Amino acid sequence: MIIEHVDEPLPGSSLRPTPPGRVYTDPSIFGAEQAEIFEKMWNCALRADDLHSAGHWKTVTIGREEVIVTRTRKAGIKAYFNVCAHRGMRVCTTGEGKSRTLQCGYHAWTYALEGDLVAAPNLTSMPDVDRSRYGLQLVHVREWLGYVWICVAEEPPSFDDTVLGEVRTRFGQVESIDNYGIESLRRGETKTYDVAANWKLIIENFMECYHCATIHPELTEVIPEFADGLASQRKNGEVHGSNFGEDIGGFTVDGSASGFEELPSLVPGQDRKYYAITVKPHVFINTVPDHVIIHRMVPVSESRTVVVCDWLFLPEVVERADAGQLDLTTSVELFHRVNEQDFNACELTQPSMSSQAYAAGGALVPSEHHIEEFHTWWYESLGMERASSPAGAAQSEPAAAAGS
Amino acid sequence: MIIEHVDEPLPGSSLRPTPPGRVYTDPSIFGAEQAEIFEKMWNCALRADDLHSAGHWKTVTIGREEVIVTRTRKAGIKAYFNVCAHRGMRVCTTGEGKSRTLQCGYHAWTYALEGDLVAAPNLTSMPDVDRSRYGLQLVHVREWLGYVWICVAEEPPSFDDTVLGEVRTRFGQVESIDNYGIESLRRGETKTYDVAANWKLIIENFMECYHCATIHPELTEVIPEFADGLASQRKNGEVHGSNFGEDIGGFTVDGSASGFEELPSLVPGQDRKYYAITVKPHVFINTVPDHVIIHRMVPVSESRTVVVCDWLFLPEVVERADAGQLDLTTSVELFHRVNEQDFNACELTQPSMSSQAYAAGGALVPSEHHIEEFHTWWYESLGMERASSPAGAAQSEPAAAAGS
Amino acid sequence: MIIEHVDEPLPGSSLRPTPPGRVYTDPSIFGAEQAEIFEKMWNCALRADDLHSAGHWKTVTIGREEVIVTRTRKAGIKAYFNVCAHRGMRVCTTGEGKSRTLQCGYHAWTYALEGDLVAAPNLTSMPDVDRSRYGLQLVHVREWLGYVWICVAEEPPSFDDTVLGEVRTRFGQVESIDNYGIESLRRGETKTYDVAANWKLIIENFMECYHCATIHPELTEVIPEFADGLASQRKNGEVHGSNFGEDIGGFTVDGSASGFEELPSLVPGQDRKYYAITVKPHVFINTVPDHVIIHRMVPVSESRTVVVCDWLFLPEVVERADAGQLDLTTSVELFHRVNEQDFNACELTQPSMSSQAYAAGGALVPSEHHIEEFHTWWYESLGMERASSPAGAAQSEPAAAAGS
Repeated sequence: MIIEHVDEPLPGSSLRPTPPGRVYTDPSIFGAEQAEIFEKMWNCALRADDLHSAGHWKTVTIGREEVIVTRTRKAGIKAYFNVCAHRGMRVCTTGEGKSRTLQCGYHAWTYALEGDLVAAPNLTSMPDVDRSRYGLQLVHVREWLGYVWICVAEEPPSFDDTVLGEVRTRFGQVESIDNYGIESLRRGETKTYDVAANWKLIIENFMECYHCATIHPELTEVIPEFADGLASQRKNGEVHGSNFGEDIGGFTVDGSASGFEELPSLVPGQDRKYYAITVKPHVFINTVPDHVIIHRMVPVSESRTVVVCDWLFLPEVVERADAGQLDLTTSVELFHRVNEQDFNACELTQPSMSSQAYAAGGALVPSEHHIEEFHTWWYESLGMERASSPAGAAQSEPAAAAGS
Repeated sequence: MIIEHVDEPLPGSSLRPTPPGRVYTDPSIFGAEQAEIFEKMWNCALRADDLHSAGHWKTVTIGREEVIVTRTRKAGIKAYFNVCAHRGMRVCTTGEGKSRTLQCGYHAWTYALEGDLVAAPNLTSMPDVDRSRYGLQLVHVREWLGYVWICVAEEPPSFDDTVLGEVRTRFGQVESIDNYGIESLRRGETKTYDVAANWKLIIENFMECYHCATIHPELTEVIPEFADGLASQRKNGEVHGSNFGEDIGGFTVDGSASGFEELPSLVPGQDRKYYAITVKPHVFINTVPDHVIIHRMVPVSESRTVVVCDWLFLPEVVERADAGQLDLTTSVELFHRVNEQDFNACELTQPSMSSQAYAAGGALVPSEHHIEEFHTWWYESLGMERASSPAGAAQSEPAAAAGS
Repeated sequence: MIIEHVDEPLPGSSLRPTPPGRVYTDPSIFGAEQAEIFEKMWNCALRADDLHSAGHWKTVTIGREEVIVTRTRKAGIKAYFNVCAHRGMRVCTTGEGKSRTLQCGYHAWTYALEGDLVAAPNLTSMPDVDRSRYGLQLVHVREWLGYVWICVAEEPPSFDDTVLGEVRTRFGQVESIDNYGIESLRRGETKTYDVAANWKLIIENFMECYHCATIHPELTEVIPEFADGLASQRKNGEVHGSNFGEDIGGFTVDGSASGFEELPSLVPGQDRKYYAITVKPHVFINTVPDHVIIHRMVPVSESRTVVVCDWLFLPEVVERADAGQLDLTTSVELFHRVNEQDFNACELTQPSMSSQAYAAGGALVPSEHHIEEFHTWWYESLGMERASSPAGAAQSEPAAAAGS
């Protein structure tokens, strides 16, 4: 007998159910998300210091676009669609390189690092060609936290309102994150995860700790309050983090001390605490006293998401680790295990999304309130209204936005 | 020059052509079949004695759903959608197991074998949660012939009218099949075939013996009347089976005696005969005097079907075979070859279904009348009318039902 | 900032931009192309002398159809849909064979090489069956240049207007190609390329030499005027080919002499020249004084095309090569490298076709005028109008024709 999950909270909770399961499985909804979310908003693309010097370029995926990011000689970091203005071939055909110009390998149309068309065979017979109009098509870039952020929309949203706004909502003020000095940290490790789940399941997972007691034994050992399923979710109108356990030496897989120093500018309230921030649509920032962990998600299809996770440390810590003088493994291993545990849960959730038993969505317990806020944002991003009164009120049909 | 196959019988036959080829290739028609046939009707899921004792569970695929089937302590066999009521994760994440409760591995929501929610973290803060409503969602089960039959629809059709009705149509009375005592037989062998063909081609193949002379040399050696292409299809208002050849010792690949006893309760008319029954939508039952062969089809896509075939024997025969005292191979090998021959033909038919040369369907000779009856049932199941007058009458468009 | 490519020529060019990128990526447009172009027009299928003697048959793919081509005893070469008239199984289940009749392996319906149904089990009980109507369904064939050309449409277009018309457009008269005696040449080599690009990108690549200087070093060594990007594209109202370089010995990978004779009936103007003809929708003919290279494209999906390339020589040249008395490698290797260079460029262009930066298409320089003519033909073939005034005029939407 199929029990219909109407749009009504779990008794004892005021949270409406999740959206219908098919928003996690329908390719046309995924297409709408790419167009309306990932190709309209700011995306975190790569670490700025990966572009060591002028002429160094890398290619990255933003939504359904491939973008060239390069360090120019005079104009800082610039980014372009990786599409030749002539007949469209990929201008850069490998993931990374260094060159004085960007030249298409098909008909030798050649672009300055700053984007303008500077040469092409027989161009002299077309003297009036506008070198800027037939240059590479620019996309918007910003640098923040040492990362290059990219927006492929013609008119990007306010970086301050969107990206910085998320930090302000979490910390009360953007300045609190500045104490970590993230822009001057260095990567000690990067791991890439290919997850067979919709990107929203990964965000929802990150937004609640109700699952911590069940699937994260190492993490709840280090941060015992996570075992209650509440800690990081609480916000008393002021800055709040999750406390390390009393006997815990550091944010490591076995709770031992990391063996290296705290970040130098932390204030007392940031000591022995873990903070987590979601920067929609696709970034998670995790801070602990001696390092920072940053996740970026790249949605590939309605049922597949690539997650890239960076572990950032003080430059001298990375140098000593490279020299074999200290070991980052116990620090890296903790969140690597958390990642694997989380992504496994997401992969075991994805197949149920197409079941008639999830056709009306699932229930949310009180500590999952961040997820409901995420759903509200998601409906708005796709231009759909969600009924303001939960009980019995029908959600507007997600298919309405899936026309694109 | 393309010859249009109009909806007109082959001269000498009164049977209308098959449906247009695209009903075997269109993914939206396949979706409609899953929704209107496999997810509305009774499906044969697994052998009941595979669930040895209380707490033992298995997962099976019914239509597009994954279902948990478990033997409870007090309530017999029960089945549920494999979807947690909270956030939807698969509750059982392997094919088989044994446990006192069914616990979701994401947030530890825990269900009794009988389905009710019995525990969850922080559940005490939500005291009014209805343990049944937030339990696992039940699906309907029936036991018959020693198999668990499952219907995932909210309102299942009458088991008597549908499943038993097919047997009654074939045997005149359901009781005739009881003589085989199928519910107390044991599996001596199970083979699984992954067939690159639409499920309807496999049913149609099973429904006629016009192909037997061409592709089944071993079978026509054992049952010579099959070489006429007619035998098992005839029904003279009374029970009728197909006779073994005069020199044939048993239903074995070389016609030798099987070396074990007949089923004990057969009546004389069931002696030295083969009977075949199709139980729509997806079961074939084949009986011979000393064993029974049962096929279940699991449609995977419009061009792929998994077929599971059980060979059932008296328990003491299986025990003696397990002890090395007798050999089931010659018995099993006969229908295994028939299966491989049939499925090969189906796989070589599937690609033609998308040809313009089959756009109006193919012809049926008189001995293929069961196929026409199947097509009539198929049109009705999808809510389409088929013109009652064959010659020149247009069939109603199958796409009409493919909206789901 | 996205620069909108309006429908306006590059300054100095009078050519309109290419169609929007999605005509190279949309599966429904690809389906329309299969229906309206490849399944309506004449396709070059195979070399006639591959069917050595009566009863020899091969299967080929034309559009989305599989076709049997066979040499009959009395009626020359015939071709049929590879679909049994009874229940549709593939009649020929391998790529090639030789037999007295064509017999379906499912129910033994048996067809004469000339197509009529000649035998079937129990056919005598259906005496009025029309042996022609229930025969194999004929498709149209023509022989020209030693190839079998096939049209699977019921009413083929005029071979003279379409296939021969392309040659007439290029050479001024069909007779010029006759001097090469292509119908009596023999294949010395065939190579098959599986290209991850839309078929139109491959045609467009073949239609211009603006890329030659960039990607074809060996070819521009042999034919220096190709380095200007113009040569083969020019047509001064009379027959025109591209000249070999002064020091070049032959059309070989290193410009050395091939070591074998010119084709015997060439006229002086065809000496030391390369000619190229596109026969839409899918054939390229390349002639040089001592051999001929012919490409056939088989479109598989919107982003995949198989290209088969034949190198044809005088029969005595192939015989001497088979006997080890001369080496065809330096001749074959030149265009094999050209093929690999071209198809690599097409594969690096395909992914950009889905970018918003190519949503309005790309630019065409003056020497790419053949491509604009191809686009005009393409719009017409799909029944779409293209605005006659280029600047600012909106193209009619390609999706309009994609309904099939």
